[in-house]
Amino acid sequence: MPHITGFDVFDVRFPTSLSADGSDAMNHDADYSAAYIVLETDDPGVYGCGFTFTIGRGNDICAAAMELRARPLIGEDVDGICGDLGETYRGLKRDSQLRWLGPDKGVEHLALGAVMNAVWDLAARRAGKPLWRFLVDMTAEQIVNAADLSYLSDALTREEALGLLGRLAPSRDDRIQQLTQTGYPCYTTSAGWLGYSDEKLRRLCQEAVDQGYRHIKLKVGASLEDDIRRLSIARAVIGPKGNLMIDANQVWDVPQAIDWIKQLSEFNPLWIEEPTSPDDVLGHAEIRRAVQPIGVATGEHGMNRVLFKQLFQAAAIDYCQLDACRLASVNEVLAVQLMAAKFGIPVCPHAGGVGLCELVQHLSIFDFIAISGDLTGRVTEFVDHLHEHFVDPCIIKDGAYVMPEKPGYSAELKEQTLQEYAFPYGSYWAGTDTGQAEQAWRAGNPPGRVAFASVRREVEA
Amino acid sequence: MPHITGFDVFDVRFPTSLSADGSDAMNHDADYSAAYIVLETDDPGVYGCGFTFTIGRGNDICAAAMELRARPLIGEDVDGICGDLGETYRGLKRDSQLRWLGPDKGVEHLALGAVMNAVWDLAARRAGKPLWRFLVDMTAEQIVNAADLSYLSDALTREEALGLLGRLAPSRDDRIQQLTQTGYPCYTTSAGWLGYSDEKLRRLCQEAVDQGYRHIKLKVGASLEDDIRRLSIARAVIGPKGNLMIDANQVWDVPQAIDWIKQLSEFNPLWIEEPTSPDDVLGHAEIRRAVQPIGVATGEHGMNRVLFKQLFQAAAIDYCQLDACRLASVNEVLAVQLMAAKFGIPVCPHAGGVGLCELVQHLSIFDFIAISGDLTGRVTEFVDHLHEHFVDPCIIKDGAYVMPEKPGYSAELKEQTLQEYAFPYGSYWAGTDTGQAEQAWRAGNPPGRVAFASVRREVEA
Repeated sequence: MPHITGFDVFDVRFPTSLSADGSDAMNHDADYSAAYIVLETDDPGVYGCGFTFTIGRGNDICAAAMELRARPLIGEDVDGICGDLGETYRGLKRDSQLRWLGPDKGVEHLALGAVMNAVWDLAARRAGKPLWRFLVDMTAEQIVNAADLSYLSDALTREEALGLLGRLAPSRDDRIQQLTQTGYPCYTTSAGWLGYSDEKLRRLCQEAVDQGYRHIKLKVGASLEDDIRRLSIARAVIGPKGNLMIDANQVWDVPQAIDWIKQLSEFNPLWIEEPTSPDDVLGHAEIRRAVQPIGVATGEHGMNRVLFKQLFQAAAIDYCQLDACRLASVNEVLAVQLMAAKFGIPVCPHAGGVGLCELVQHLSIFDFIAISGDLTGRVTEFVDHLHEHFVDPCIIKDGAYVMPEKPGYSAELKEQTLQEYAFPYGSYWAGTDTGQAEQAWRAGNPPGRVAFASVRREVEA
Repeated sequence: MPHITGFDVFDVRFPTSLSADGSDAMNHDADYSAAYIVLETDDPGVYGCGFTFTIGRGNDICAAAMELRARPLIGEDVDGICGDLGETYRGLKRDSQLRWLGPDKGVEHLALGAVMNAVWDLAARRAGKPLWRFLVDMTAEQIVNAADLSYLSDALTREEALGLLGRLAPSRDDRIQQLTQTGYPCYTTSAGWLGYSDEKLRRLCQEAVDQGYRHIKLKVGASLEDDIRRLSIARAVIGPKGNLMIDANQVWDVPQAIDWIKQLSEFNPLWIEEPTSPDDVLGHAEIRRAVQPIGVATGEHGMNRVLFKQLFQAAAIDYCQLDACRLASVNEVLAVQLMAAKFGIPVCPHAGGVGLCELVQHLSIFDFIAISGDLTGRVTEFVDHLHEHFVDPCIIKDGAYVMPEKPGYSAELKEQTLQEYAFPYGSYWAGTDTGQAEQAWRAGNPPGRVAFASVRREVEA
């Protein structure tokens, strides 16, 4: 009977800011990163990998928070941890001192999510199943026990959640068969980063169409003139029937959002994504009323299930773009998927970044098989970068995610990647100015003193 | 012309969990803590102190985040930093990589607040004024430039903010004179912690009444039977006309909150504080409609100005209990105070913890002098512990905060306190099991390796 004996936490960063990959109106210089944890047991073949996604600086803060969050797992029996994943989650979350730093948001929540992602990976690996199948094989009772339904009873009761799952149970096998043949539909953001030239945009849109994508997303919000020009190009390539989505990455106030979106309405976008602060439920509701029939989408910065509850209650969104790492792992994702099903809102998960595609394919597949039972209006994001660093990368065929088959949550990074991209001591970073500058900062902070950190720099007079 | 040359960050923790001070239905074992920063300049007499408040574990995560947030200040000219406090704030906040970890919430937001609290302290010290006076002497234009109004224009425009300040400018001196005579009214939570015996509760309520307090707050929410007994005791002591407030510290779902509060309505509470998740704007609005005339109060976990905007827009609260450290320093507090004034909601700041009383006295005094101009329905929290650790502790007289006179934001901790309570290497903690256990964890994490942290423990078979 294996026990959890330890863990490694890695601060992994990729120098994506060197290209314009990932550039949008809010984020100009993202270095796509993962704060990554490997849970180990006294059986070398039994381990679990999990992470949260960040865009560079502060990835170390997440890693430090994960170290603290994972400590209570050490010494625990693996069967116990994996046998009641709701209780494992609640046990870690129950730490009232750490709760103060949120609750349920920011670094501490990302850290809880990363650690629990590793626990779910461990549980699925131990069962010898890909995560989506591991979930399918849980009973409705087990799923609802695992889901974090706290603070949700005014929108979704436990009984309603059981009812939603029970309703679709008899027809699950049909949908598994369907997805095995078609895959789960996705769309691409690879074409539309703000930093790309018009020529590159046109070429990438054409390539996406040629590869079978029927949805293309463009970043907007930095310059109205540029947006109009870029949307004209994209619309011309994909034709009047293709689906064009736009994404403002939170740059607008509410009145400004309404005004700007209306000026892009001639391009008939399917949705406007992140028009304003991700915390602004009432703002999204107002924008939605003003820009119909353009849909409103948000969620990649949706901090927790209580925010999504309100987005549903206020009829503020048309698409729910939950994030597998922003939410505190599968436990909280299940709660949001169940609420979305009750309110009839399609879940189109955020992906891209580092490894988000690898995770969300499992979540979307389970959503269709057991919770929504519907593909209408549903597409999951796909961005084509950094997959080569994963042991079990996602596979896209004809604009759809192919069902993963290997055991686990597809979250494992290659050993070579860790050696190279761990920040700031990995072989890649050690050779850069950024890595060396960071090493110099850290050298000034020896542990074991009264001050947590003491920093001094000579200043030119 | 001094420059910022460095800083020290301290993880300071007080072992308050040894008594039942600070115990409530959510937080059973709080070790009141401060992640504390001292900004230094090349003039030894010119420095700034700031902190954020936490309740123990994770205080180190905040300290680490503060170290990262403060780095860009090094080398900056003090006059420049202090001369445009809005631009200094926006400059630090602009880091899009760190923004990803929030935005505007959780550890990163606490860290930004702590660093900017130190900058405001530095600015007021350099001007030789207590912070409230430093603010009073700023022009309306300067105040509005300093306030973080981003994402707020649908609720409060820049022009409206200037109008609010201009309206009260001619009568400021009257209110300064008034407060100099009476102080700013406060209430006490010292009596009502959940872990206290009935006898201690009765004695502390009587002492509070004898000291001139007309408001007393009790923690509720763990047991309805206990709540009824404890409220009976408190109501008997303070009489039918005294103000009794109750505080549930987020333990209820929305329907449960409504049910529980109704069963306590016979004690005629002035407000119910934190009835449910601090993120649940719509939930607070529903509770408020259901329990009137009992007021609804929240804010100590109110993560940012966008949340408060919605609480105001949705008519969800009767009292705004903003927190001087949860919000990102004076810059964001000003925005919430200005919105509250527009919506006619009294601001009754959260205090207690470590040093929150020292900070909020300045904020409440400025609020009355320049923003609200009104004391109706306004009381600021006061909890009588840990003040002895501050160089310039707040002073209470006849149930009111006495106007602070020393330069700065009253945020400086004593040197002896740092030596003793820095975690885990300070002299107090080094002698405890908790401190030694933490030292052992850290010894296992030498820097300079590919893994951020590597942790191994022997596990009993």
